[in-house]
Amino acid sequence: MKPIQVGLLGIGTVGSGVFNVLGRNQDEICRRAGCDIRIAAVADLDTARARSIVGESVRVLGDARELIADPEIDVVVELIGGCGIARLLVLEAIAAGKHVVTANKALLAVHGTEIFQAAADKGVIVAFEAAVAGGIPIIKALREGLTANRIQWIAGIINGTTNFILSEMRDKGLDFGVVLKEAQALGYAEADPTFDIEGVDAAHKATIMSALAFGIPVQFDKAYVEGITQLAAADIKYAEQLGYRIKLLGITRRRPEGIELRVHPSLVPAKRLIANVEGAMNAVVVQGDAVGATLYYGKGAGSEPTASAVIADLVDIARLHGADAAHRVPPLAFQSHTLAAAGGELPVLPMSEVVTSYYLRARVADEAGVLARITGILAEAGISIDAVLQREADEVGGEGSTQTDVIILTHDTREGDMDTALARIQQLPTVLAPITRIRKEELN
Amino acid sequence: MKPIQVGLLGIGTVGSGVFNVLGRNQDEICRRAGCDIRIAAVADLDTARARSIVGESVRVLGDARELIADPEIDVVVELIGGCGIARLLVLEAIAAGKHVVTANKALLAVHGTEIFQAAADKGVIVAFEAAVAGGIPIIKALREGLTANRIQWIAGIINGTTNFILSEMRDKGLDFGVVLKEAQALGYAEADPTFDIEGVDAAHKATIMSALAFGIPVQFDKAYVEGITQLAAADIKYAEQLGYRIKLLGITRRRPEGIELRVHPSLVPAKRLIANVEGAMNAVVVQGDAVGATLYYGKGAGSEPTASAVIADLVDIARLHGADAAHRVPPLAFQSHTLAAAGGELPVLPMSEVVTSYYLRARVADEAGVLARITGILAEAGISIDAVLQREADEVGGEGSTQTDVIILTHDTREGDMDTALARIQQLPTVLAPITRIRKEELN
Repeated sequence: MKPIQVGLLGIGTVGSGVFNVLGRNQDEICRRAGCDIRIAAVADLDTARARSIVGESVRVLGDARELIADPEIDVVVELIGGCGIARLLVLEAIAAGKHVVTANKALLAVHGTEIFQAAADKGVIVAFEAAVAGGIPIIKALREGLTANRIQWIAGIINGTTNFILSEMRDKGLDFGVVLKEAQALGYAEADPTFDIEGVDAAHKATIMSALAFGIPVQFDKAYVEGITQLAAADIKYAEQLGYRIKLLGITRRRPEGIELRVHPSLVPAKRLIANVEGAMNAVVVQGDAVGATLYYGKGAGSEPTASAVIADLVDIARLHGADAAHRVPPLAFQSHTLAAAGGELPVLPMSEVVTSYYLRARVADEAGVLARITGILAEAGISIDAVLQREADEVGGEGSTQTDVIILTHDTREGDMDTALARIQQLPTVLAPITRIRKEELN
Repeated sequence: MKPIQVGLLGIGTVGSGVFNVLGRNQDEICRRAGCDIRIAAVADLDTARARSIVGESVRVLGDARELIADPEIDVVVELIGGCGIARLLVLEAIAAGKHVVTANKALLAVHGTEIFQAAADKGVIVAFEAAVAGGIPIIKALREGLTANRIQWIAGIINGTTNFILSEMRDKGLDFGVVLKEAQALGYAEADPTFDIEGVDAAHKATIMSALAFGIPVQFDKAYVEGITQLAAADIKYAEQLGYRIKLLGITRRRPEGIELRVHPSLVPAKRLIANVEGAMNAVVVQGDAVGATLYYGKGAGSEPTASAVIADLVDIARLHGADAAHRVPPLAFQSHTLAAAGGELPVLPMSEVVTSYYLRARVADEAGVLARITGILAEAGISIDAVLQREADEVGGEGSTQTDVIILTHDTREGDMDTALARIQQLPTVLAPITRIRKEELN
């Protein structure tokens, strides 16, 4: 069979991984795909660096549009990132009749509806295994492996930077700021780590998984996003004493009223496999009604792990190349015309409607009746308590201290009710500092 | 689109799961597949039981051949098991131009080459996601998700019965025989558990994964198979003291000389995620050169988890139905004509050529020089030692005992060299009982 001709837009970390792996494993990939997959051209603003990576055998262009316009190119791989020029180039590639492979989660989470529609109109494929959890084939699992199931929820560690930071905070008992600097020095966090540490990157990925799982459009604007910058070492320690680890989870859950879509630090029982995913690794748990829980684990970022996913998409395209559009797997798992309308029967719920359980930590005056007043307010709000941990004042504040920490684990409750109760508790004169509230997911 | 008409051969545990899940999730599955998937007929020797499961809406036949001959049936799902009548019926279904879905690992591991060839000749699909690790989409991961990679090794807990038994042995400190009876009472082990506890079932699954990973034919007859019946509670305890868990692993590994394919109890470092897979759960680690290690975890057996995999295959077929054979994913991941010849450049290696590390336990006389003689023999064979644990005689044999246990962990060595060294050590007059030898896999 005729080789598939691939054009790369951008040849940084991931692009060079794609180039290297395709070169190294050429024979084996061809035996799987049924034809050669060839990088025919690369477009990058830094043509000298691009040339130094691909050598003389591949055309190097400074202009992405020249690559897209090339009639020889079958597939355009977008590795630029972001929602600016990347969006325009992806739409132009589709308009030119090219299949598109992208690792760009921001682009799909925000502009996916527009892009998938354009691809459907033009009869081309948009593939994006690399957009979620790097080399772990989680998109394929959701789209093809678990199609028998009514998916109930997904919870994932889908940002390696934050999982590395949380692992280090727990291991070494250090606070967030200290570990962030270490992570930056080691290359696990970027110079501007905002998208990672504020949970935005994880929310992009959770948004994409939510669409695949539930047959709804991508709706990043409805996602609740909370990062790890406010986490204190003390909370990680208390959680551990209660049998939990704290992880930044991307969660999406089906409820009769709609879909929960949220990213925030979460307590997870330490005995769950996902609680033991450490360092920069990723893992996703999918709960289906037939299969139960399945878990997918691996490297969520990096040059060759991400390239592994990009090339898997290229092999899928090579295997299907020439088949008509009717015989393709729909990009969001459900046939496009059956996607629920955004905000229709399966709306993404506001955070106040989310139901979950909580870890609360209050710095209080060490005097009689404080705990009773706090638990009384929770009871009046219909919030039931799972466990209470009260520290000795001396342990918390040193000898002679008149302050202590009260830690409370609750059972499931509506977040809106918790907000109201917390506001009341915060007003108590014996509560001496802002209350820490971390959500808790049992994942069972 | 026209519905896909499915015929079930056999409606026991898995068949009724397929019927129930297809019924319950009909709408969602249709939205994914692009057409309805309908069970049109069921063939089972026990027609009364079949009728009680499927009700009046589905045809019930006592004769499998009548179902296969029905021109309305598009896909035959074989859920009979074994290599006897199941083989004949699968070949007849293929000859009749039906696509086949099967959960029958024994059939594919032993007769896969014949079956895949027949399907290729006839232009039909043989799908078998349910044959390995139940509801975990590991076949799809190997065949489509990891196609970029030169796969280096796979290690899996792929038999739930034995993992349940090993988990219980460790938790409760009980010996194999006691826990087996408990497992049988709980329904985790069959009345005749031979295939599970002797490692045969795991070897069938490892054989299939080996073919998918390395582009070789299925070669069950070359697999090394050792079960868990000889495991003593003492070894599980000693392994734990050394930082390891004992798991029954199905392992297949690429070496320059050929392919290792083996099932046996293995020490695994306790900190590895797979070492923490407990009870009847399954998990598979795949090491690829680009992606690194990925892990897949879930229920490996049971009615609906297995049905989840069968239905995923049906959805794949529905999505591809009508596409010509050139646009299908090859059953063993590699295009059929590119499979290596059995015994050719990538032979499955004999066990004596396998390279791994070992846990050895010897019951010895508690006198000076014993350990030196044993380690001397290992050194002469070029086998280097990683760790030694020598118990106090009193702890092992009670007060005044003159016997003790020596436990040795080795580094990697050729199994043939270990065999020779062990035979020499066994001859020592101070070695008082047969030496226990368990292989050890670092999985890093």
